[in-house]
Amino acid sequence: MTIHNFSAGPASLPAAVKQQLKSELDNWQNTGTSVMEVSHRSPEFKALMADNEALLRSLLGISDEYAVLLVPGGARLQYAMLPMNLSAPNRKTVYHVNGYWGFLAYQEAQKFSQVVTTTEPPKAPYQPQHSLGDYDAAQIDTDADYFHYTSNETLEGIQWHTLPDSNGLPLCCDMTSDLMTREVNIDDYGIIYASAQKNLGIAGLTLVIVRKDFIGQHDNNIPTLMDYATFEQHNSAYNTPPTFVWYVMYLVLQWYQQQGGIQVMQIRNRAKAQKLYDFIDNSTFYSNRVAPGIRSEVNVPFWLADDGLNEQFLRESSAAGLKALKGHKAVGGMRASIYNAVPMQAVDALIEFMRNFEKQHA
Amino acid sequence: MTIHNFSAGPASLPAAVKQQLKSELDNWQNTGTSVMEVSHRSPEFKALMADNEALLRSLLGISDEYAVLLVPGGARLQYAMLPMNLSAPNRKTVYHVNGYWGFLAYQEAQKFSQVVTTTEPPKAPYQPQHSLGDYDAAQIDTDADYFHYTSNETLEGIQWHTLPDSNGLPLCCDMTSDLMTREVNIDDYGIIYASAQKNLGIAGLTLVIVRKDFIGQHDNNIPTLMDYATFEQHNSAYNTPPTFVWYVMYLVLQWYQQQGGIQVMQIRNRAKAQKLYDFIDNSTFYSNRVAPGIRSEVNVPFWLADDGLNEQFLRESSAAGLKALKGHKAVGGMRASIYNAVPMQAVDALIEFMRNFEKQHA
Repeated sequence: MTIHNFSAGPASLPAAVKQQLKSELDNWQNTGTSVMEVSHRSPEFKALMADNEALLRSLLGISDEYAVLLVPGGARLQYAMLPMNLSAPNRKTVYHVNGYWGFLAYQEAQKFSQVVTTTEPPKAPYQPQHSLGDYDAAQIDTDADYFHYTSNETLEGIQWHTLPDSNGLPLCCDMTSDLMTREVNIDDYGIIYASAQKNLGIAGLTLVIVRKDFIGQHDNNIPTLMDYATFEQHNSAYNTPPTFVWYVMYLVLQWYQQQGGIQVMQIRNRAKAQKLYDFIDNSTFYSNRVAPGIRSEVNVPFWLADDGLNEQFLRESSAAGLKALKGHKAVGGMRASIYNAVPMQAVDALIEFMRNFEKQHA
Repeated sequence: MTIHNFSAGPASLPAAVKQQLKSELDNWQNTGTSVMEVSHRSPEFKALMADNEALLRSLLGISDEYAVLLVPGGARLQYAMLPMNLSAPNRKTVYHVNGYWGFLAYQEAQKFSQVVTTTEPPKAPYQPQHSLGDYDAAQIDTDADYFHYTSNETLEGIQWHTLPDSNGLPLCCDMTSDLMTREVNIDDYGIIYASAQKNLGIAGLTLVIVRKDFIGQHDNNIPTLMDYATFEQHNSAYNTPPTFVWYVMYLVLQWYQQQGGIQVMQIRNRAKAQKLYDFIDNSTFYSNRVAPGIRSEVNVPFWLADDGLNEQFLRESSAAGLKALKGHKAVGGMRASIYNAVPMQAVDALIEFMRNFEKQHA
């Protein structure tokens, strides 16, 4: 049986990447050993590091004005690193919150900066929203260090398809779930970060693309390994990095290049999302609660008309090889994460299952 | 040709671990997919997490008075986390420095604590020592929060075979290079930490064994993901952990158990080290500069009588399948790291090569 993995992260890897990984597990680059056992100071691994950065720059169009950093840990560590590096406890930052992850970023930033929100300050526990959130950009304090937002909210299935108005402040964006899935103009941003386990391989590293003039400007006493300057000065290898995670990222980037780059990913992702949303919209049995203009092209939440059928839906879909469709507990229902490595075939199989399930229960 | 990898880290994995890893790469635990693509919230991965902790507790004899934490990043992040969690900028800590890594820990701690050293404060750039460093334990300020040292210095090849006298302060130890290689009485320590890429699998996680009453006592405003309490409260999975790194650790621990546990590792490591040191001591062509009582059983540095032959030695040893023998640039010469996964067969092959090389050049 073909297995289709709709996990929100750690998520599917391209089949070709898994194949390559397996084929060179015993002997990587003629070292006679696996990549996991090779020093990060070896010529072979240093070449991989350089190639990886070159591929990222080429695929995303990153200019020399930006540093490309790989930081151990996930995006949530960046929720602290960002204000520690770019702001200070006595300075202001602006956070726009329109979903669960944006809320967590806002909460953590309050430890290291005077945080102002664009809308009414959200309260814990965070309640899911279903809009991008209205605010008056002209009211944004231009004295703040940056404007932070989350481009795609994975729980709610909400995505920005335009740039938010930051009233001239540098845009800082958590793109964990949609970087590499569509074209993006890096020059619009001060900083972009994305953890790897959705569209950049496996869990353990976060990619940080940051304007070089933003690095090393702080006067905070921060840990050496939370200072972007450390990563910039040492090519992200000041100490031993998670080498295998880095290696998998490199294989994934090579696959993107072979497939035709980010533009091709965008076309495929739009087509997958469109087909799934069309099916849901044409059904009375399933529904999606997000307005069409702000729907996520990578996380498609949907609800059954009868919540009492949720468990059966999950049990039978899993038995049919359709894995990890349960929605986040904060929003309920189902969620299909259809990142770059999930093929159209998986979406087709999901729709077929949903159609049959509806027939049996409608 | 058999390859023997003497890398100081990332280092060799047991051959059986690599075999198992490869065999379940396509279908881990009947999930139909690889462990890399499975959610850290799945029942399968949660079971691995629990089993991993149980194995660590059983292999090392860790009581319920200690928390077992897995923190992303390497030991150098702990150089900051330790004083941030256990001390404060206005409180004292004691650092004993007798090698390169201890010096780096001491440097970083100065950001977050009033650091006192047991000996003359070392200066940058650090110069390699070849002793454990004499100090008067009775002079140690018992008002300090802890006493920090490094049990095994990988560059110099120096190892503590007794406990240092901390004048009653809690012992905090960087055991990155020798945890799991010999028996240790956890109850002697306040905190022990070790990054994974030497004897606990691959790079990307650091094991922290810490007395529970030391957690959450600080009043510092530290990042959520640098607070030991976050890791304790969420079983080290507050956010997405590096799941594959965790999985490899689990395979390595299972292998230790199958082999007979840490006692067996200690017997093997002593035998490997003894054989190599005996050969070096009986030679006039090779030498080791460390006094017998404090020699490392896991990192064996040695020098050729004629430095001019270093390049040839490295070239020919590599061609013979003996990899990563170059010493750290701060100390020069050669270094054979013979961690748990390096078999006696590798030491035998190294000695045979060294004997033949000497015959050609003596």
